[in-house]
Amino acid sequence: MNKSEILIDALAYIKKFKGKIFVIKLGGQVMLDKNIMDTVAQDLILLNYVGIKPVVLHGGGPEISAAMEKFGKKPKFIEGLRVTDEETMDIVKMVLIGKINSEIVECVAKHGGEVVGLSGKSARLFVAEKRKGKVDLGMVGNIKKVNTKVVNLLLENGIIPIIYPVALDKDGNALNVNADTAAGQLAAELKASKLILLTDVSGVLDENKNLIKRITAPEIDDLIESKKVSGGMIPKLLACKSALNGGVKRTHIIKAVEHGILEEVFTSYGTGTMITVEKVE
Amino acid sequence: MNKSEILIDALAYIKKFKGKIFVIKLGGQVMLDKNIMDTVAQDLILLNYVGIKPVVLHGGGPEISAAMEKFGKKPKFIEGLRVTDEETMDIVKMVLIGKINSEIVECVAKHGGEVVGLSGKSARLFVAEKRKGKVDLGMVGNIKKVNTKVVNLLLENGIIPIIYPVALDKDGNALNVNADTAAGQLAAELKASKLILLTDVSGVLDENKNLIKRITAPEIDDLIESKKVSGGMIPKLLACKSALNGGVKRTHIIKAVEHGILEEVFTSYGTGTMITVEKVE
Amino acid sequence: MNKSEILIDALAYIKKFKGKIFVIKLGGQVMLDKNIMDTVAQDLILLNYVGIKPVVLHGGGPEISAAMEKFGKKPKFIEGLRVTDEETMDIVKMVLIGKINSEIVECVAKHGGEVVGLSGKSARLFVAEKRKGKVDLGMVGNIKKVNTKVVNLLLENGIIPIIYPVALDKDGNALNVNADTAAGQLAAELKASKLILLTDVSGVLDENKNLIKRITAPEIDDLIESKKVSGGMIPKLLACKSALNGGVKRTHIIKAVEHGILEEVFTSYGTGTMITVEKVE
Amino acid sequence: MNKSEILIDALAYIKKFKGKIFVIKLGGQVMLDKNIMDTVAQDLILLNYVGIKPVVLHGGGPEISAAMEKFGKKPKFIEGLRVTDEETMDIVKMVLIGKINSEIVECVAKHGGEVVGLSGKSARLFVAEKRKGKVDLGMVGNIKKVNTKVVNLLLENGIIPIIYPVALDKDGNALNVNADTAAGQLAAELKASKLILLTDVSGVLDENKNLIKRITAPEIDDLIESKKVSGGMIPKLLACKSALNGGVKRTHIIKAVEHGILEEVFTSYGTGTMITVEKVE
Amino acid sequence: MNKSEILIDALAYIKKFKGKIFVIKLGGQVMLDKNIMDTVAQDLILLNYVGIKPVVLHGGGPEISAAMEKFGKKPKFIEGLRVTDEETMDIVKMVLIGKINSEIVECVAKHGGEVVGLSGKSARLFVAEKRKGKVDLGMVGNIKKVNTKVVNLLLENGIIPIIYPVALDKDGNALNVNADTAAGQLAAELKASKLILLTDVSGVLDENKNLIKRITAPEIDDLIESKKVSGGMIPKLLACKSALNGGVKRTHIIKAVEHGILEEVFTSYGTGTMITVEKVE
Amino acid sequence: MNKSEILIDALAYIKKFKGKIFVIKLGGQVMLDKNIMDTVAQDLILLNYVGIKPVVLHGGGPEISAAMEKFGKKPKFIEGLRVTDEETMDIVKMVLIGKINSEIVECVAKHGGEVVGLSGKSARLFVAEKRKGKVDLGMVGNIKKVNTKVVNLLLENGIIPIIYPVALDKDGNALNVNADTAAGQLAAELKASKLILLTDVSGVLDENKNLIKRITAPEIDDLIESKKVSGGMIPKLLACKSALNGGVKRTHIIKAVEHGILEEVFTSYGTGTMITVEKVE
Repeated sequence: MNKSEILIDALAYIKKFKGKIFVIKLGGQVMLDKNIMDTVAQDLILLNYVGIKPVVLHGGGPEISAAMEKFGKKPKFIEGLRVTDEETMDIVKMVLIGKINSEIVECVAKHGGEVVGLSGKSARLFVAEKRKGKVDLGMVGNIKKVNTKVVNLLLENGIIPIIYPVALDKDGNALNVNADTAAGQLAAELKASKLILLTDVSGVLDENKNLIKRITAPEIDDLIESKKVSGGMIPKLLACKSALNGGVKRTHIIKAVEHGILEEVFTSYGTGTMITVEKVE
Repeated sequence: MNKSEILIDALAYIKKFKGKIFVIKLGGQVMLDKNIMDTVAQDLILLNYVGIKPVVLHGGGPEISAAMEKFGKKPKFIEGLRVTDEETMDIVKMVLIGKINSEIVECVAKHGGEVVGLSGKSARLFVAEKRKGKVDLGMVGNIKKVNTKVVNLLLENGIIPIIYPVALDKDGNALNVNADTAAGQLAAELKASKLILLTDVSGVLDENKNLIKRITAPEIDDLIESKKVSGGMIPKLLACKSALNGGVKRTHIIKAVEHGILEEVFTSYGTGTMITVEKVE
Repeated sequence: MNKSEILIDALAYIKKFKGKIFVIKLGGQVMLDKNIMDTVAQDLILLNYVGIKPVVLHGGGPEISAAMEKFGKKPKFIEGLRVTDEETMDIVKMVLIGKINSEIVECVAKHGGEVVGLSGKSARLFVAEKRKGKVDLGMVGNIKKVNTKVVNLLLENGIIPIIYPVALDKDGNALNVNADTAAGQLAAELKASKLILLTDVSGVLDENKNLIKRITAPEIDDLIESKKVSGGMIPKLLACKSALNGGVKRTHIIKAVEHGILEEVFTSYGTGTMITVEKVE
Repeated sequence: MNKSEILIDALAYIKKFKGKIFVIKLGGQVMLDKNIMDTVAQDLILLNYVGIKPVVLHGGGPEISAAMEKFGKKPKFIEGLRVTDEETMDIVKMVLIGKINSEIVECVAKHGGEVVGLSGKSARLFVAEKRKGKVDLGMVGNIKKVNTKVVNLLLENGIIPIIYPVALDKDGNALNVNADTAAGQLAAELKASKLILLTDVSGVLDENKNLIKRITAPEIDDLIESKKVSGGMIPKLLACKSALNGGVKRTHIIKAVEHGILEEVFTSYGTGTMITVEKVE
Repeated sequence: MNKSEILIDALAYIKKFKGKIFVIKLGGQVMLDKNIMDTVAQDLILLNYVGIKPVVLHGGGPEISAAMEKFGKKPKFIEGLRVTDEETMDIVKMVLIGKINSEIVECVAKHGGEVVGLSGKSARLFVAEKRKGKVDLGMVGNIKKVNTKVVNLLLENGIIPIIYPVALDKDGNALNVNADTAAGQLAAELKASKLILLTDVSGVLDENKNLIKRITAPEIDDLIESKKVSGGMIPKLLACKSALNGGVKRTHIIKAVEHGILEEVFTSYGTGTMITVEKVE
Repeated sequence: MNKSEILIDALAYIKKFKGKIFVIKLGGQVMLDKNIMDTVAQDLILLNYVGIKPVVLHGGGPEISAAMEKFGKKPKFIEGLRVTDEETMDIVKMVLIGKINSEIVECVAKHGGEVVGLSGKSARLFVAEKRKGKVDLGMVGNIKKVNTKVVNLLLENGIIPIIYPVALDKDGNALNVNADTAAGQLAAELKASKLILLTDVSGVLDENKNLIKRITAPEIDDLIESKKVSGGMIPKLLACKSALNGGVKRTHIIKAVEHGILEEVFTSYGTGTMITVEKVE
């Protein structure tokens, strides 16, 4: 295809998604690979210019752990969730915001995007409740309410929000929340059209490490219970499930490669794993 | 360049022209070649979807003459303007609207565009005055005022107007006006960013039939006076001049080929002849 | 009554209809009689100025047949519907738009109205489906969907739309549709307050050629089945019925005489036949 | 002319004045003659329905004097202005508002108008300054500022304001102001199209009691200085002058007869005296 | 508490009531005591400035009776309602509007408030029906419909309406309506947050003249039937009941003392009697 | 004064400042003293609720230095500006955002405010240029352009922005900018009514350590040149000067004490030093 044909081919997808919201969760690899991050920035700006509204959410797992060790603290996880005492929370905030969010904002700005870094505390975007359980995880919370006012304000004004998942409890205390879960709940509340989780692997893999291209929501529980998927993939699948339950049309777990977002959005074949409510195609 | 790179490359042009108006004048060849017309339709829809506002204006020279001969009337031109008696005017209207405008509207609709065919009489879009001169050309007019209300209404609502140049005089009588001239005046009044004239030749040619790639407004008079250009190219150059005088940034005379509009808009090299107020690049 | 009393008397009707939409279908006679057409134009402008929103729809039966014969084609009708091959469709378009719609637009403009001629293809105003049946009528369609966006845009901006009933099928092909039927469906979709069909006769006549002043919707089927009415009156009555089903309050079949619209709208006695859902007065 | 012709004839005036503001000052006679008041009410409502925005201002001279005498107080005037001590002010307010304004409001409401009675104190509509001079007139003021916010709010919502001229000084004390003068200043501030003063005489009369049909602003001073006009006609002419200076197009001093407003507005000949900046017709 | 602490303390109440409507009924005592009236004016303006929307309604019992006697007419009451013949109605209007409403408007304006005096006739704010019964009370009505359009217009524009309870029947005749009852119905229709009745007593008193601090709606009927309350307190309690039925959250009967409104609104203990749908605290 | 009187007294200031923007710069002491910070949060929320729009800007001098030393880096200043290499910039960002901004946001949220933490990079709020000079200060910039779009968006929606002064250069690189200077430029661009700098001292002190209560803009240069003021007070005075030049009415340098903002805003005597264009009082 020549240039014009490629543009006309893209038109079909632009038509389909014009005015729609995409929640895109950036995983660890993306932020560490400058080449990939540059193309993510370009992809976000392109989406924004053709009338699609991207909302970015990111975590910061590896870098937080690295910073903790620098400060002489050993990261500790229980059921995949970081035990977060007050000192850890301070490090979480400094790394998530002061470093990672900053770098993403600067990268997208460098490529010409209009972008605002935003904490989940902004105008009570994420209202959470301290997680209860047998073991006290410290300042870790579950999101109970999502107030999209600020996010919508920015989207209506053509600005891309870059959000990090620190929430407030109802008394105004900061709580650490899981980024995948937050992305799923945010996508549901925003009535997003797509939730895209950028990860380090090519999608959901079966026990033989082959990519599963299509999953339906009802199959998720089975995949988890049968232990065919495990580790960090579990919260990602559950995030997709909660987004789908909230009305999101399609959710995707894809590998963060150069222009991976465009490849997913602007082709008929897509990439990675697509999870939908019902079987498609 | 692969697909993603082409899209990102296009982004620079989308950014530059977002929210801008392009007046595009379709010349004879376009409407007769179905393949070209199909790609023009696609190009218009793409522009519209990425936030550029195309306004189409078309004439109908060859088809009007053909229809006249069918009705047993001999077309007559004085200084490139069609002598238009009442019977000829009836034929002009029937062909321009009933046939050509209809076909363009249907073609863009077929490709998925939201489009409205519009006469220059619509809410007094073009108010003209009967042309005075030594020879009476009949119902031929010069546009004295352009009321863009309806065109702007449609553009604000994402609809592409397809306009044919029949004007009204102040008493409500229809007058035939030159399509190139009308396009120039419409572009000026709409504060368009670009005026693109699609023609049968590759642009303005010098005496050796070589393409002149850049012309500045002050050079136009010289080109005409020195007879380096002649015939139908004169009203086109004058239309560009009046558009530039009215504040249009760039005007283009290009050949109607497949995806010719995209090639002009989305590349740095452009095609055909570009006429600007001052020298560029 | 002196002038002031007449104005005050009119006030009652202005109050009643302010902000309401009237769909007015012009039949053949109107467009051929310049005196009547002039008063129709004045009536439309007056309605518009006192805050009533007229929408005009017109057919072109006699003139299309005349043009066909000029081109050496014999008009052919099956069950009152014109058999429309491609060549006939070309003539339909040229006459309906190029001639009749043009003349109406110019006439209303001449009297000072702000008016836009509009095809039923405009932004898919009328989406039709090719008529199926034992006999192939060619490019003749039934309206399946009415998209009033453009019509409402114009009405909200004080512009009178003059519409001719060429529709698009879902693939963008033009189809000829019956003007009476189109008027009824348009009135229903616009939630019009009145549908007024201007005809050559003084209203619905009974078997003794006496005017029937009032008909209720349920009586229509009986009138048709009992063959008390026939010919062109059938689609008119059915158009009224579909308008009434769609929520239009009152529908009228009246004779096109000078200022016939005002006489109908601004008097308590009205003219012609009024068809309503239930008995009134 | 028959009914339709009269309506079409009126259309020219409706077109001309649509969206324009008319300030109409009702003089004594109007409010005392129930028949005239009824037709004034109808005229106001008609104007309002055809898109003209009437603003009514009224005084209450004769009735205030009558009430004063009832209370055993002798009305006293200096240079045509009522000497207004505190007790008089109380009577002014009670009569102007409690009686006259009430009656006008009820009369227009009775005829179906949406109407609000409003004092000149409303949101500081009229801010006045106590009149200074050799003789102390008491609580009598000159308007220094007109705040049209409330009046415009009502007009934009299709409500007719009925205003009586009690003003506030900057400390919030009520001051009696001349109704003619207030009408002139209000018309200027509202950028009214017309100021109409309804009076007991047929217009401005010359020394032979003949009606002067046309006066230009520059002639006003001469008429006053040469004592060709005198008494209550002086503030009326000065009110017209200040309205004209403020940009009002036409001012009229006419006799309050049945439907006098319509006769003035909807005829080419008009009634009474018209005062304009420059000669017309 | 020092100044800052008091302001911060007030913040809790400002937050709670921001954007809410309070209907405040001024009883006789308020308007006669200049000191109290001055603080009422200040309180209204403060409420308005911190974003609460006060709507004032007032009666005029004692002053109307006084004026009647001045005019040599003996006030007559049946079941607490003033027998209102035409002459009495004239006095009611003159006193309510010309005197009391005027004084309140001027007092609030004096303190810097933006305020409009408004009759219940304004744009048919109160539509009433002549009261029927064994005894003819004359021009006395029951409110059947409350049209809040004008009141809402003023509130949206930051203006305080001061309303006196003269209503119109459906034919445009003025009717006297009870001020307490009108306040209750207005509060319900406006979806007010509070109804505050300022009276001459400290609240609802029990048979031992002790203040009852809390009453619930269901207890009202019992209080009346058991004759524990009587006289003017009955319409007040019924007004509260109808407001509560209409969705008003809290209603208050309090004594008109200096800054009594602020004391009620900006303290946790409040003053007077609070009547709510259900038990609170 | 009792509670009501204090509220009424405050009304004068609420009236004066309603709808106005205050830029408030928080200096080091404020953020370290929890009691003061709590009252600052309350004061901001109160201002916001009575219709004043506070915009907060903060630096982080002492805490950044403390963090640097923790990381084993020695803070270095030239002419009062921190030398900022890349590693220092990382610490600046982590402390300013991850710690200080976070704490302010959480504190205001805890007291019930709707608040968004915002970097100066947000939608290019502060566009800076690397500072040039004899000595290279590293990533330190001068603000060249202030884009208030995001700040205004938040203010219009009742949200308090808490801004930290990291800017972007035109290529998207982060630059450290002085918080006082940024506050002055932001106040000018926002057309703020007041700029309030909260500091550790009671205001500008003369050579005898006595508070100077009033300074005019022209006196600033003299104070600096004559070395009567020195150190950190210089950028503060220059920030006031640039705000005043940009149209800000009043600027204040005051001590951060409990409810210090309210004391400044809601009293006639104010606190600290007030700097204005011309002499006041």
